[in-house]
Amino acid sequence: MAKEINNPIPTPSVPAPDILRCAYAELVVTDLAASRKFYVDVLGLHVSYEDDTQIYLRSFEEFIHHNLVLTLGPVAALKAMAFRVRSTAEVDAAEAYYKELGCRTERRAEGFVRGIGDSVRVEDPLGFPYEFFFETEHVERLHMRYDLYSAGELVRLDHFNQVTPDVPRGRAYLEDLGFRVTEDIQDEEGTTYAAWMHRKGTVHDTALTGGNGPRLHHVAFSTHEKHNIIQICDKMGALRISDRIERGPGRHGVSNAFYLYILDPDDHRIEIYTQDYYTGDPDNPVITWDVHDNQRRDWWGNPVVPSWYTEASKVLDLDGNVQEVITRTDSSEMDVTVGADGFSYTREKDEDGTYRGEPSKGFKLGNQV
Amino acid sequence: MAKEINNPIPTPSVPAPDILRCAYAELVVTDLAASRKFYVDVLGLHVSYEDDTQIYLRSFEEFIHHNLVLTLGPVAALKAMAFRVRSTAEVDAAEAYYKELGCRTERRAEGFVRGIGDSVRVEDPLGFPYEFFFETEHVERLHMRYDLYSAGELVRLDHFNQVTPDVPRGRAYLEDLGFRVTEDIQDEEGTTYAAWMHRKGTVHDTALTGGNGPRLHHVAFSTHEKHNIIQICDKMGALRISDRIERGPGRHGVSNAFYLYILDPDDHRIEIYTQDYYTGDPDNPVITWDVHDNQRRDWWGNPVVPSWYTEASKVLDLDGNVQEVITRTDSSEMDVTVGADGFSYTREKDEDGTYRGEPSKGFKLGNQV
Amino acid sequence: MAKEINNPIPTPSVPAPDILRCAYAELVVTDLAASRKFYVDVLGLHVSYEDDTQIYLRSFEEFIHHNLVLTLGPVAALKAMAFRVRSTAEVDAAEAYYKELGCRTERRAEGFVRGIGDSVRVEDPLGFPYEFFFETEHVERLHMRYDLYSAGELVRLDHFNQVTPDVPRGRAYLEDLGFRVTEDIQDEEGTTYAAWMHRKGTVHDTALTGGNGPRLHHVAFSTHEKHNIIQICDKMGALRISDRIERGPGRHGVSNAFYLYILDPDDHRIEIYTQDYYTGDPDNPVITWDVHDNQRRDWWGNPVVPSWYTEASKVLDLDGNVQEVITRTDSSEMDVTVGADGFSYTREKDEDGTYRGEPSKGFKLGNQV
Amino acid sequence: MAKEINNPIPTPSVPAPDILRCAYAELVVTDLAASRKFYVDVLGLHVSYEDDTQIYLRSFEEFIHHNLVLTLGPVAALKAMAFRVRSTAEVDAAEAYYKELGCRTERRAEGFVRGIGDSVRVEDPLGFPYEFFFETEHVERLHMRYDLYSAGELVRLDHFNQVTPDVPRGRAYLEDLGFRVTEDIQDEEGTTYAAWMHRKGTVHDTALTGGNGPRLHHVAFSTHEKHNIIQICDKMGALRISDRIERGPGRHGVSNAFYLYILDPDDHRIEIYTQDYYTGDPDNPVITWDVHDNQRRDWWGNPVVPSWYTEASKVLDLDGNVQEVITRTDSSEMDVTVGADGFSYTREKDEDGTYRGEPSKGFKLGNQV
Ligand SMILES: [Ca+2]
Ligand SMILES: [Fe+2]
Ligand SMILES: [Fe+2]
Ligand SMILES: [Fe+2]
Ligand SMILES: [Fe+2]
Repeated sequence: MAKEINNPIPTPSVPAPDILRCAYAELVVTDLAASRKFYVDVLGLHVSYEDDTQIYLRSFEEFIHHNLVLTLGPVAALKAMAFRVRSTAEVDAAEAYYKELGCRTERRAEGFVRGIGDSVRVEDPLGFPYEFFFETEHVERLHMRYDLYSAGELVRLDHFNQVTPDVPRGRAYLEDLGFRVTEDIQDEEGTTYAAWMHRKGTVHDTALTGGNGPRLHHVAFSTHEKHNIIQICDKMGALRISDRIERGPGRHGVSNAFYLYILDPDDHRIEIYTQDYYTGDPDNPVITWDVHDNQRRDWWGNPVVPSWYTEASKVLDLDGNVQEVITRTDSSEMDVTVGADGFSYTREKDEDGTYRGEPSKGFKLGNQV
Repeated sequence: MAKEINNPIPTPSVPAPDILRCAYAELVVTDLAASRKFYVDVLGLHVSYEDDTQIYLRSFEEFIHHNLVLTLGPVAALKAMAFRVRSTAEVDAAEAYYKELGCRTERRAEGFVRGIGDSVRVEDPLGFPYEFFFETEHVERLHMRYDLYSAGELVRLDHFNQVTPDVPRGRAYLEDLGFRVTEDIQDEEGTTYAAWMHRKGTVHDTALTGGNGPRLHHVAFSTHEKHNIIQICDKMGALRISDRIERGPGRHGVSNAFYLYILDPDDHRIEIYTQDYYTGDPDNPVITWDVHDNQRRDWWGNPVVPSWYTEASKVLDLDGNVQEVITRTDSSEMDVTVGADGFSYTREKDEDGTYRGEPSKGFKLGNQV
Repeated sequence: MAKEINNPIPTPSVPAPDILRCAYAELVVTDLAASRKFYVDVLGLHVSYEDDTQIYLRSFEEFIHHNLVLTLGPVAALKAMAFRVRSTAEVDAAEAYYKELGCRTERRAEGFVRGIGDSVRVEDPLGFPYEFFFETEHVERLHMRYDLYSAGELVRLDHFNQVTPDVPRGRAYLEDLGFRVTEDIQDEEGTTYAAWMHRKGTVHDTALTGGNGPRLHHVAFSTHEKHNIIQICDKMGALRISDRIERGPGRHGVSNAFYLYILDPDDHRIEIYTQDYYTGDPDNPVITWDVHDNQRRDWWGNPVVPSWYTEASKVLDLDGNVQEVITRTDSSEMDVTVGADGFSYTREKDEDGTYRGEPSKGFKLGNQV
Repeated sequence: MAKEINNPIPTPSVPAPDILRCAYAELVVTDLAASRKFYVDVLGLHVSYEDDTQIYLRSFEEFIHHNLVLTLGPVAALKAMAFRVRSTAEVDAAEAYYKELGCRTERRAEGFVRGIGDSVRVEDPLGFPYEFFFETEHVERLHMRYDLYSAGELVRLDHFNQVTPDVPRGRAYLEDLGFRVTEDIQDEEGTTYAAWMHRKGTVHDTALTGGNGPRLHHVAFSTHEKHNIIQICDKMGALRISDRIERGPGRHGVSNAFYLYILDPDDHRIEIYTQDYYTGDPDNPVITWDVHDNQRRDWWGNPVVPSWYTEASKVLDLDGNVQEVITRTDSSEMDVTVGADGFSYTREKDEDGTYRGEPSKGFKLGNQV
């Protein structure tokens, strides 16, 4: 079913760096006070450091300096998505790896942000600003500080999600870099719409979503239990910002996690996520979902709002300029599943099911106004 | 704000019966095996009795004979909605009350269904088949039978919800009957779209939803916790019947409960519901919601699917014939809130909020395809 | 099995007041700052009013002025346990009722505490300071203020629990007063060790525990879900006050609720409680537990610590003096179930079961050091 | 603080095998029907295969053939504790590693049990029957089969726990084998009472508990949420086997997990466990607990029952004979913390705290009968 990849990214001759996990994102925000309100007052992330231009935040169980840096700037965008590697030698490996790929790289012994030491940032072949580091300041791990535990507590950074036009091309590149695919969405012609890949033994450290890119689709934090996610919704309702709940809560098909998508003041999308599964074995079974399976994105068949498919955050190059967005030429997941030209089914090959008189293979959305 | 009621139902001179609570519904279903699969295999209700034409079901904590009777018949409909009264003398009171109202009544010392003794059924002024009884066979209360406790266990019958064209008229009638309103939905002109009213000290034993009626909107069962409701969704996904999840899960504005609406094989709507609040004090504050408040029906602003507004179960008269449906002439809640002629807001008087570039006062649905 | 009651309390000729529910307790505390830390900072109750000598607290879903008054004083004790009645006329009824009983009563049109109007306090036949009131200031019901919702949020006052030497005598008095028994603990000789009784349709508004009395055993607040109670334990661990967790968490046999007992700075015992069952029908089945059933107090057979049996708060008379404590002469539940002279069983009539080599009928405690 | 290790186990010159995770235990049971009732009917593990002498069980999210093998035999014991390695070459590595250690090894290309291929079993230097394998039959991963999801569902095998007399000696051996310590318990003199160590990025794949050994302390399975564990307790109560609940539920200090210990029909101890934290970074902070910290074993200060300290399962050698148990000569954790000669504190250096009049540094157990 695999198609040939157009314009493949070459596999370097030097070894890929040994990546541990997704570690933090640096987001440019345009109103630091508004962002603080969202991430600290609403979501309850813990401040490791803050000043007039930056806020450093971490989740409840984290011991590295931060999982999120909010940096004040003129244009909301992703400035860096950082992966932790196993040692400083692996930062060297990353630098060599991307140099061989012909990518622009920048190495800083003192780090690009506070709390992080020797690190390299690159403009990767897909146009994303990746960072690799090992050195970091250890901060208090709050994992037993239940006196600070809010009802909607975010306990870990779980993953990133990136929008890129050509998923198979990006996937091959990330597999070379050491990521392993756990799940993907394809159609019967072999078009890949999205792929999930990991290093740390969960469903993903990052995922590729097919679309115009490079753009950042979302950053995801974990909670302990499902009720913590419901509380975040309830609190956003109480604060009368329910219009910033974009999608969910729901149960993913892909990953099996319970999820919620919300929007920060700059429209950066944050996912809240809990209870995927262990994937650390090398023969972990890969799950391929049919793009027409209406339970792939939401196990309960609830509709994906179009903005979730179309909107995403800009990403910056190493000079801080917005990366040009390249249009996806493959089929769009939204187009093939929603509306007049698309279709989805609840039960494969079941043409007879009905939903309040409408075809069951239709999106529930099709039954709405 | 209250408008004069058209064609009011007179208040009888005799005392209203002392109603304890909503107790059971008798639903006519057209395929008993399919219904059994839904209510027993999927939802896990417990069988008190069954034969070739009927199944009697109860919830985990119930001690009266049943909360639901499924009766095989040619047309899916509500055959009776039964309230338990404080004593047999109150059955007499109910009979006298409805006789004075000029309603057709039928008294049966041996009950209309198994497990229920002396009872009266009436065709009430709104056209609904109400039953009042006290005598019932006590069955094993399963409330500590955790060996039978499923992950999505339904623990109580919570309430009914009825569709009727003229909500204020119905409300006044039910207040005469002893129900107390806890919450309602109105607009600035005093049109009432729905009202919730109780006897047992929760938000409701029954509610009136404005629409073409008499029709049964839904029957609601409670779970202990929110995760139990999520499990029901997950299980329906696993069984590939996610197209029978109509709406939710979500948090209600009205009632503050966590909810889910699903459809049985005959399109009878079942709500799963948990965690509303105590209302038993006589001065319990009534909450009136603005029909344009987009958090009234879902605290998170998630859209109400149109079928939820338009579809409902037929109801039968005492001869088993379907009651004629009378069209609502007041404004429709769907029309005034959704689509070109309607509007909803997240924040009252906030015209500036945006949701991915769309007006925040718009329904999230308006942002969908 | 019922024994004759010694020295029965006469049934008044006047009607008992129509009690709605347990409403609030007034506790004398000896260090207001320490108590504030416990009830506000640790438990998260919401302050309705406070000054240098009193703090008024309410739970998340309450709309009356308070559920707890902390009053600074020299001796830690219960000053009043207050029940709300249906109307001011019922306060009259309460006053007349206790006057006929020969009890000392005090009526205050302006109330005894802030936020409460016309009320009567009595020294009841068991020696407890009961209050009856209807008038109260309505405060903001916080039930949808999820922005204020803590991870261990207390949402309602659920019940009181009183220690009295002669349970059948007290039970008959409270049944006269309109309470209905839902569960009790007896032995095969008819000795009653405890009884639970309600007005509001839950397992209890108050309970009688056999022991030296009058003393207040505990005041109980509800949470929405079980994890909220676990969070309170986790937080007390984080604050290094785990020595103030007296018993639990666990599942009660009696009431079927999930529970926890903790101690305030004055050793007033607070229970945190969730998920008992509906009891509002007049024929609600009464459950009688065998005192030797090792699952009656903890469904999982975990031991009851002796302090839970022996310790309780003093109660005050209307002059503010401590009521004399009368010794129980009936068997003590602790004595008949724990240690050399007592026994408990997991499975009735099962002598063979073993627990790590010890008799299964033995208390787990018996297997401890 | 580290003491010199007596009789250290040499570090082989060949590389240690690359272990992925703890994978399954083979337990000898003396009544297969009784064990089936416990593991299948009570705990809900899923049968991968069974015949008259063996039952193969797996957890909800597992894709390898099994996590537990119950093998009928004359003496209840651990027959093997199996770790999965990264490839068959790593089975070779394991064999060579233990051969160099002078341990008895047995290699079977067809595996020792069904569903497992080429594997090696060894009598390790501590006397435990370790197995290493890679090849396994993939079975249906049930992780989305919510139609099979019980209220107390066990979703993963989490870890083993082994009793050994000399913890530092065993720890050094396991560190050589590639395990990394996450937490331990020591006293001020450097005596180590227990150590937790992992491969898969959680707190542990196995732990060493100081005591007479080699013995198996327990096998632990995970649930998704805390309520799943409570349900297991509730169900054991309903089945009147609460005497098989040995300890808990509670919150661990070490690992921060919510836990429960129960006993199977042969007194094999099973832990149910949820919500520890990510440990996969090489500089993951190690937490050392003071043995006198009364919150180390239970964050809420609830007592550890003596049987938990003293009892454990025998282990077999490769001939199926019971391994001789060697007595611990270091201090016993129970002795130094419980009873007349031991002490524990809630707050370090706080002599003043009181618990119902008893010293707070005392074990709560000391306040029991
Ligand atoms: Ca004591
Ligand atoms: Fe995601
Ligand atoms: Fe409803
Ligand atoms: Fe209680
Ligand atoms: Fe363990």
